[in-house]
Amino acid sequence: MNDTSGRRDFLKLGMAGLATAGALTAVSAEKAAAQAASDSVLRTALDRGKLIVGTGSTNAPWHFENDAGELVGMDITMGRILAKGLFDDPTKVEFVMQDPAQRIPNVTTNKVDITIQFMTMTAQRSQLIHFSRPYYVEGVALLTLPGSENKTFDKLLANGSATRISILQNVDAENSVHFALPQAQVMQIDTQANVLQALESKRVDAAAVDLSTVRWLASRNPDKYFDAGKSWYSMLYGAAIRQGDLDWLTYVNQTFTIAMFGHETALYDAAFKEYFGQEPPPRHPGFPVI
Amino acid sequence: MNDTSGRRDFLKLGMAGLATAGALTAVSAEKAAAQAASDSVLRTALDRGKLIVGTGSTNAPWHFENDAGELVGMDITMGRILAKGLFDDPTKVEFVMQDPAQRIPNVTTNKVDITIQFMTMTAQRSQLIHFSRPYYVEGVALLTLPGSENKTFDKLLANGSATRISILQNVDAENSVHFALPQAQVMQIDTQANVLQALESKRVDAAAVDLSTVRWLASRNPDKYFDAGKSWYSMLYGAAIRQGDLDWLTYVNQTFTIAMFGHETALYDAAFKEYFGQEPPPRHPGFPVI
Amino acid sequence: MNDTSGRRDFLKLGMAGLATAGALTAVSAEKAAAQAASDSVLRTALDRGKLIVGTGSTNAPWHFENDAGELVGMDITMGRILAKGLFDDPTKVEFVMQDPAQRIPNVTTNKVDITIQFMTMTAQRSQLIHFSRPYYVEGVALLTLPGSENKTFDKLLANGSATRISILQNVDAENSVHFALPQAQVMQIDTQANVLQALESKRVDAAAVDLSTVRWLASRNPDKYFDAGKSWYSMLYGAAIRQGDLDWLTYVNQTFTIAMFGHETALYDAAFKEYFGQEPPPRHPGFPVI
Repeated sequence: MNDTSGRRDFLKLGMAGLATAGALTAVSAEKAAAQAASDSVLRTALDRGKLIVGTGSTNAPWHFENDAGELVGMDITMGRILAKGLFDDPTKVEFVMQDPAQRIPNVTTNKVDITIQFMTMTAQRSQLIHFSRPYYVEGVALLTLPGSENKTFDKLLANGSATRISILQNVDAENSVHFALPQAQVMQIDTQANVLQALESKRVDAAAVDLSTVRWLASRNPDKYFDAGKSWYSMLYGAAIRQGDLDWLTYVNQTFTIAMFGHETALYDAAFKEYFGQEPPPRHPGFPVI
Repeated sequence: MNDTSGRRDFLKLGMAGLATAGALTAVSAEKAAAQAASDSVLRTALDRGKLIVGTGSTNAPWHFENDAGELVGMDITMGRILAKGLFDDPTKVEFVMQDPAQRIPNVTTNKVDITIQFMTMTAQRSQLIHFSRPYYVEGVALLTLPGSENKTFDKLLANGSATRISILQNVDAENSVHFALPQAQVMQIDTQANVLQALESKRVDAAAVDLSTVRWLASRNPDKYFDAGKSWYSMLYGAAIRQGDLDWLTYVNQTFTIAMFGHETALYDAAFKEYFGQEPPPRHPGFPVI
Repeated sequence: MNDTSGRRDFLKLGMAGLATAGALTAVSAEKAAAQAASDSVLRTALDRGKLIVGTGSTNAPWHFENDAGELVGMDITMGRILAKGLFDDPTKVEFVMQDPAQRIPNVTTNKVDITIQFMTMTAQRSQLIHFSRPYYVEGVALLTLPGSENKTFDKLLANGSATRISILQNVDAENSVHFALPQAQVMQIDTQANVLQALESKRVDAAAVDLSTVRWLASRNPDKYFDAGKSWYSMLYGAAIRQGDLDWLTYVNQTFTIAMFGHETALYDAAFKEYFGQEPPPRHPGFPVI
């Protein structure tokens, strides 16, 4: 047993306390199996010895294969955080590839313990599944070229109707862009690849895409892409679990909260840095604002 | 189906994804009926085809009839947000008029699915019902006259014992005022109407009333009332649902959270502007602070 | 009945409303017993007429005996907040002394209704019990001497490798100190008492101990200790209750939330001041950020 909380508990308990805490954690999985309601996914997963996560493999930076062919991404990290919490081992997780359309059905039919797949929390979906607490807030943002004179949001805004923005075609595209850039020209384009291509070929000044895409591309390819520094239109991303399972819902929420605000932030923070090129805001001990 | 999340999902899924998302939502109500625990209010409401909300009609800006005789207010909007989430139609809700004393009994006896009626979250009440997450934080604030020399809090404070404050009579009135204005003279008055009348007739410099009342009156009648710009004494307002119903509790909490922090803020924000004359603070995509 | 919410409700309901609210609260315990699921600890505690809290007595400022021999501390206050919410009487609580190793077993075997004992929220523990919302965020901080030239964090940092820090010995001690003071010399010491002794005898410039310890010692003995003003490494402290008990979990969370963010903050704030020498950050009425 070698968990951070054990390491830290010495500050109050001393070495004797550390030993006790270690012993306590060692029997955790065993006791939890006896403890959690027999029909809880928490018990099923502990008994099975691994977690089953429904996700995808084709959407960086959320879930994708890296150059070494490994499945990685922010969604994958959230799954590993749960596996580490359950088994003290972030590798004890099986990722099941599923189409986005299967994100809810695979949860309600128990094919997966949880779906973690860039899923926007909506009231409609909440009729069918419980969402975890949000682990990221997606938004719309502006990707520009690092060598461009108009690479910052302030310039794009100041240029008024001379500013051209590419965006994937849809009924709401104009409104979406004009929320932040009221006078900009909007070019609706058929595919995401072509939205970026319009930027690269300088037919537009900026591409309006997901904030996570902007952060991913701009941090990975600083010579090629720049984050104009403006985002809007929050969308909460949450994991999906089946309804009626208090123990599993509470477990997932508390494990995510600890991983985002507590002493076990190493995995979350490393992923945030890797995929978004940023540090999460500093957490402050003392009065809990969460 | 024409929900905002569908409109936005194009950014990651493209038009094919949009079609899929639409199909998924179209079967939501049907599947949810099969999904939620059979005794959950979530299922009852979906099966019924409308939501039943207990509330009142005589307290602006929370629940009241507008000049057109329509029931409106911040509480009413929170009910419509739930109806929109359940049925993609904010009108599929029946508002049951109830006395404040019936706010809890009508929930525990299943006369209403939920009470949304300017209800302060207290530990005593939480013995009997579950509260939703807070949707507003009430406070005490100071209403002044726009033409008054001492219309701002700083002036009221600086004038010390010369400042006169009207407030509804009660055992805690002196303490409540002196928390913010330690030296002020406190005039306890028998009715809320007379508390305001004392201000209008200039017998006092300010009336200490609910923050929501100050915001409502000052934003609707800027020629007549002014918000002195100070509020204190937080009281959390939550909706009340029956105990033991995890699916309904989670549904209500997640729908409120999405309406306050996610992509579906249109109804909440419009109401906040209409009833309090203010924009909610901006939400920032990225790391979730909620 | 003389609760704060009753006192405040006059602002919207007038004196008649106050009387109604009083009547409502008077029957709370009785109705709650009928209302909460029969196997909920909420019902058990209400029926019993007192709350049973597992805690300790030897760790200031969390749970300890004061000079008058009374059990006091931040953990004790959180128990009294629950008792006040249940019985309108903060004394209707029995504190059961338990070893830290019994914090979870005494909950899972129903020996106590809740454990409140400086317990770090961890995913491992969350397999066995539900944590409440966090009521404090512990951290590592630096205790210095008030007369020292290098009593502030900036000075300790600026002095680089000349700065000496005492800390309880453990495998992570070096990393823990170097996170905040990368060049400091780390002296690992066998007991907490000797960690402080090293500071008092000026063998080190600062002692790295829990933030709560720093706040407690520096606020109680300002002539002897100083808070260098830096803390890091957040650890969430939560109360522990048994799994599967939605009514009790919700009750505890909402009562803590009201005590930390609502109108009933008197007990929490007094304890925060007493044990940490600080005021909690101001709460702002209006849009709820919690």
